[in-house]
Amino acid sequence: MEVIEDITLMKNCCRKKKLEKKKIGFVATMGALHEGHLSLIERARESSDFVVVSIFVNPTQFGPEEDFKSYPRNLTMDLKLCQEQAVDVVFVPSEEKMYPEGFPPRVEVKDRLTEILEGASRPNHFGGVVTVVAKLFNIILPDVSYFGEKDYQQALVIKKMVKDLHMDVEIVLSPTVREKDGLACSSRNKYLTLEERKAAKVLFKSLLAAKAAIEEGEKESYRIIPSMERLIKEEKLAKIDYIAIVDPENLEKVEKIKDKVLIALAVKIGKTRLIDNMLI
Amino acid sequence: MEVIEDITLMKNCCRKKKLEKKKIGFVATMGALHEGHLSLIERARESSDFVVVSIFVNPTQFGPEEDFKSYPRNLTMDLKLCQEQAVDVVFVPSEEKMYPEGFPPRVEVKDRLTEILEGASRPNHFGGVVTVVAKLFNIILPDVSYFGEKDYQQALVIKKMVKDLHMDVEIVLSPTVREKDGLACSSRNKYLTLEERKAAKVLFKSLLAAKAAIEEGEKESYRIIPSMERLIKEEKLAKIDYIAIVDPENLEKVEKIKDKVLIALAVKIGKTRLIDNMLI
Repeated sequence: MEVIEDITLMKNCCRKKKLEKKKIGFVATMGALHEGHLSLIERARESSDFVVVSIFVNPTQFGPEEDFKSYPRNLTMDLKLCQEQAVDVVFVPSEEKMYPEGFPPRVEVKDRLTEILEGASRPNHFGGVVTVVAKLFNIILPDVSYFGEKDYQQALVIKKMVKDLHMDVEIVLSPTVREKDGLACSSRNKYLTLEERKAAKVLFKSLLAAKAAIEEGEKESYRIIPSMERLIKEEKLAKIDYIAIVDPENLEKVEKIKDKVLIALAVKIGKTRLIDNMLI
Repeated sequence: MEVIEDITLMKNCCRKKKLEKKKIGFVATMGALHEGHLSLIERARESSDFVVVSIFVNPTQFGPEEDFKSYPRNLTMDLKLCQEQAVDVVFVPSEEKMYPEGFPPRVEVKDRLTEILEGASRPNHFGGVVTVVAKLFNIILPDVSYFGEKDYQQALVIKKMVKDLHMDVEIVLSPTVREKDGLACSSRNKYLTLEERKAAKVLFKSLLAAKAAIEEGEKESYRIIPSMERLIKEEKLAKIDYIAIVDPENLEKVEKIKDKVLIALAVKIGKTRLIDNMLI
């Protein structure tokens, strides 16, 4: 396994593989790898000739009050995990090389998709995500890139960018990996105290309750959402940011459930903001 | 010469050439081809194996009060000229295919560069330019793309996008081609009446006067600009939008001339807005 820091070296390496007609599989991460990341890397390994994982805590996708500085970083462990997964190259660019002239996002997908849900709660978040993913795609030229369903909206935004900009990357979504009690794997779970960790189960629990209600025939979002709220509010450490029942294609709110819906929520447990969702 | 309308066909055609290791030279145009375009195509022909010219009047780079509807279109003549220049493919995508979900620019280079001069006079102009050029580059995958110095700021913005997004395109700037009396070639010259056409000479004349003053030792922008203004105001049909003496690297204003400068101006002749510039 090679570890590459330099952008030009990374570009040259991938262009060589392209000329050799190797299929490049790519997983973009911010490090602090967990089972969710590993499942993406596994899929990339299974279906590609050459697997690149990037580790870059991208400053442009954090808001000024958010956790950029405290975001968990553990490169030694991450590299060990990548090695175990038979990754070919880990790309670890520096902030200075990725943003030589400062941080404001320079590429933006302007779209209703980037303004709702996570986009409403985190105003410049998707601008930062799209900027860094566009940069990484152009450096690495992947044939396929793997993203987790936990960040469902992010995956849709990236799909939109790829389509609008006619990029040659297939975006593959992979199911959310959960811990034993159902909590979605996330690097941010590391922030949780023992007590908060227990409280965090309420996100998945509320999704399961909504699923059960829908499967029993409930069709009205105005009844499902309040009952999820009640359940979450029983947990003293939890504070709801949003709960939404939306169309999985465009994330617009659904009042009356007819087809498949996505239930998405963001909840703060103590100071840690967690997201989760379920396709029903 | 092939004429391709379909984006997927165009993508496939260029990817085939890439695999054959052909060097792709690309000239992006809005049609109504003139000598300036032809000089770019000539350079592309000389230095590439495969020459693609796009003709697309891009709606997203026009302001609501601007001349999108009346912009000159003459595809038959354009194709004839391309054929004479031994172009390999002319790409003529439709608006519907380029912007299937409407027009708001979806990629933006946010930078001081896009906010000054033309960016100040035409607020969403560079957002539209960058969007369409990013799309075209990703469809055509050129090795080299040629732009005219007349649109100097546009070329800098595109260079910035290519660098920031790590695109594999070399941007080559080519000198402004002028008509016999010095007026810079522009598709918009077609709007001018005979009388306006005569008046339009004043742009180049004022640039030459500034050049002469600088060559005689004048170093103060606060004296050069007003004397250009006086000269242009003698022409009744002319109305100045801006005149600026700037650093050719970042387009920031230069008060005292020490090194090379760019003098850039935008002037309305009747209803037609013309731009020109000179590196001195």
